[in-house]
Amino acid sequence: MAYDAALKELSALLGDALTLSKPELDQHARSESHFPPTPPEAVAYPTSTEEVAALVRICAAHGCPVTGWGTGTSLEGQSQAVRGGVVVDFSRMNRVLEVNHADMDVRIQPGLTREELNAELRATGLFFPVDPGANASLGGMAATRASGTTAVRYGTMRDNVLGLEVVLADGRVIRTGTRARKSAAGYDLTGLFVGAEGTLGLITELTLRLRGQPEAISAAVCAFDTIGDAVQAVIDTIQMGIPMARIEFLDTASVRAVNAYAGMHFPEKPHLLVEFHGSDSGVAEQAEVFGGIVADHGGADFAWAQKPEDRSALWTMRHNAFYAILALRPGCRSVVTDVCVPISRLAEAVEGTIADLEAHDVTGPILGHVGDGNFHAILMFAPEDPAEEVRATAAAGRMVERALALGGTCTGEHGIGLGKRGYMEREHGEGWQVMATLKAALDPGGIMNPGKLVPGNG
Amino acid sequence: MAYDAALKELSALLGDALTLSKPELDQHARSESHFPPTPPEAVAYPTSTEEVAALVRICAAHGCPVTGWGTGTSLEGQSQAVRGGVVVDFSRMNRVLEVNHADMDVRIQPGLTREELNAELRATGLFFPVDPGANASLGGMAATRASGTTAVRYGTMRDNVLGLEVVLADGRVIRTGTRARKSAAGYDLTGLFVGAEGTLGLITELTLRLRGQPEAISAAVCAFDTIGDAVQAVIDTIQMGIPMARIEFLDTASVRAVNAYAGMHFPEKPHLLVEFHGSDSGVAEQAEVFGGIVADHGGADFAWAQKPEDRSALWTMRHNAFYAILALRPGCRSVVTDVCVPISRLAEAVEGTIADLEAHDVTGPILGHVGDGNFHAILMFAPEDPAEEVRATAAAGRMVERALALGGTCTGEHGIGLGKRGYMEREHGEGWQVMATLKAALDPGGIMNPGKLVPGNG
Repeated sequence: MAYDAALKELSALLGDALTLSKPELDQHARSESHFPPTPPEAVAYPTSTEEVAALVRICAAHGCPVTGWGTGTSLEGQSQAVRGGVVVDFSRMNRVLEVNHADMDVRIQPGLTREELNAELRATGLFFPVDPGANASLGGMAATRASGTTAVRYGTMRDNVLGLEVVLADGRVIRTGTRARKSAAGYDLTGLFVGAEGTLGLITELTLRLRGQPEAISAAVCAFDTIGDAVQAVIDTIQMGIPMARIEFLDTASVRAVNAYAGMHFPEKPHLLVEFHGSDSGVAEQAEVFGGIVADHGGADFAWAQKPEDRSALWTMRHNAFYAILALRPGCRSVVTDVCVPISRLAEAVEGTIADLEAHDVTGPILGHVGDGNFHAILMFAPEDPAEEVRATAAAGRMVERALALGGTCTGEHGIGLGKRGYMEREHGEGWQVMATLKAALDPGGIMNPGKLVPGNG
Repeated sequence: MAYDAALKELSALLGDALTLSKPELDQHARSESHFPPTPPEAVAYPTSTEEVAALVRICAAHGCPVTGWGTGTSLEGQSQAVRGGVVVDFSRMNRVLEVNHADMDVRIQPGLTREELNAELRATGLFFPVDPGANASLGGMAATRASGTTAVRYGTMRDNVLGLEVVLADGRVIRTGTRARKSAAGYDLTGLFVGAEGTLGLITELTLRLRGQPEAISAAVCAFDTIGDAVQAVIDTIQMGIPMARIEFLDTASVRAVNAYAGMHFPEKPHLLVEFHGSDSGVAEQAEVFGGIVADHGGADFAWAQKPEDRSALWTMRHNAFYAILALRPGCRSVVTDVCVPISRLAEAVEGTIADLEAHDVTGPILGHVGDGNFHAILMFAPEDPAEEVRATAAAGRMVERALALGGTCTGEHGIGLGKRGYMEREHGEGWQVMATLKAALDPGGIMNPGKLVPGNG
């Protein structure tokens, strides 16, 4: 077996918290994506930063790959150990270490999930706003620079991580950032590790910014005759500066999927789902201005969800849309796309995508966080139909080309992982080589999540 | 003369746009700080990215230091060429390249100042919100991660730079970021160069995020009996989630200085200066809630400045406070401090500082951006009194120690430059060595602003 010497030392370090059992290796072999499974040699369940540091030192000495694992909900295979080695599962490092009510921040371990955190915070009047849908681990969310439905108002993980503790590739432990709200003290190391997908080090602790639970929340859903109308309503909303908490788009195919999956009865038209946060009067004012914009674009069937249980049903429906879409064709898999463009080019990007999918016979319902200019087409294929997979993958490539031509990015929130690495040179040019230089400087042995993000790298 | 061969090649490249004239070297020898002047060997005035890249390639070949220069308004000597070489003055690269109204962003050259940009934007309904007081160049503001009075609402340069063009230490030119509002595509290179103080490369173009000019603006000033009352009012305001556009503190000594300098008649007490941005009703609601908090803490002499000219006078007064304080003792110089702490520890930090200054016979009016937990003591000394300078410098060091012990940072917004480098190891521990590793990877010859920010470095 590969890395025998390393595994022996790791076993001495971790005892039962290192497993080589096949079922557990298989559990850690794939993400929620279409990539082939890649079981590691071992899975470690550390319980402290010291254990993680000792583990990394052993792996460094033996050149054994180390890949972090939160909940396995990444959509680009970031946590798949494609070069083997050890997967570090943070599920036993999932404590809330310190809630600072007055400063509205919290110190946590990386294995804690966002729903667990918000459950702990419920009585405090505070909440953590970033919501990618999946009940992901917060360490994983930081590592992949996750965002989701609320980023239009509260920002992404980039904006909500105040500081980190990181185990570097040589086992050194550093702390980045402070609990102050801003700092001009040197390179932004926090920002460097957020979004690095575990290729520069393992996050072992996070200090996160919290927000006050809004006094009033109001959500609504409304239908449009055309995608162009819906998207133009979004553009106007953003340009008017309405501080939307969420503004989500579902195309007709997505609405149909959701109706079938969740027994809903939305009209089979493009929809916007929105949410407002603020004071009672602030929410009322936002809703009134938004209502005017919707009317200007022929929006109809405007339905409010003001009761918490109705809102919860609405967002559960939205967050299950991915599964609802996959359920349209039982057994199918999908290439999930994640382009993000300047808001002024959003209609062009969405309409261009739809025309392209039709022209190339690809089934791909579209939905997304349109307030950020970010949308997903779920490009479906039958596992037994390689030609269909080729068509889906090619369409995904054209979506990226279209987004880049419009001044956008190949991934708004899912990250690079295995699926988007092929677009990095096209998006960043020489900047991708700079990323490789940074990676080589901090991980000269190339043991941290090799095969990901940068050129070369195993 | 040092770097003769480099200067000869640079002269051939730049012609008249390279100067060795003593008056111009002297003009580029100091910032707005107390550090001794350090004239460079030459000053270059490039007009294009290509010229900057060619210049850097020549300097790289000869090991000649390269230090960027915007307006020379940095407070920590960031733009001083402490190892000599060439100062690159960006004043001839000061154009607005592209305003995207629909996406609320703008592409500019680095020598453009923030007031110039806002003058260009006046008719568009948009503005660039970051306001450090000085009419600094936007390239310099990005390089030093500047913020100022409005950061409490709009964030710092970290939050408002969408993308950069950067000339690296070997003359390669990269573009970071996109015009999309968010991206998960690899390492955050934009964030790495923002705040790097020119030690990793020279910024030759910026894409900045703009905001809509608020429908309503309202400003107010009010006095408190004690510093504790004023600071507690700030803490309550932040914790209530009131979206203040500015919330500034001046202690009694600063108020006295401002009264004398600007012919104002504020009561000689600690003051808060605030500004609200929003819709008419939103501003009224914010002001009402804030008024209640002020009353709870015994605030008095609440005066509104609703007319634009009154507001302008108020903020001019605030921005001139530094000069007003220096004018208290003609001919004096100052050590400017810039600590930032978690908001819950702000009263402790301010009161601890005042007690310390009194105990050590140091004159140091205090003012700052208290909504961020960031404040400055202007520690004055007579140039002819070395003992007083020693006392001021020692007090500055104790302020940093106090801030770090409270979970804060040695610099909220001024950056490291020459003045704060001695605190980097204390603040970042091993993280400072990581910064050195990154610097060595991107600038192996150590030519980019040597002597700054990282350990070693010339």
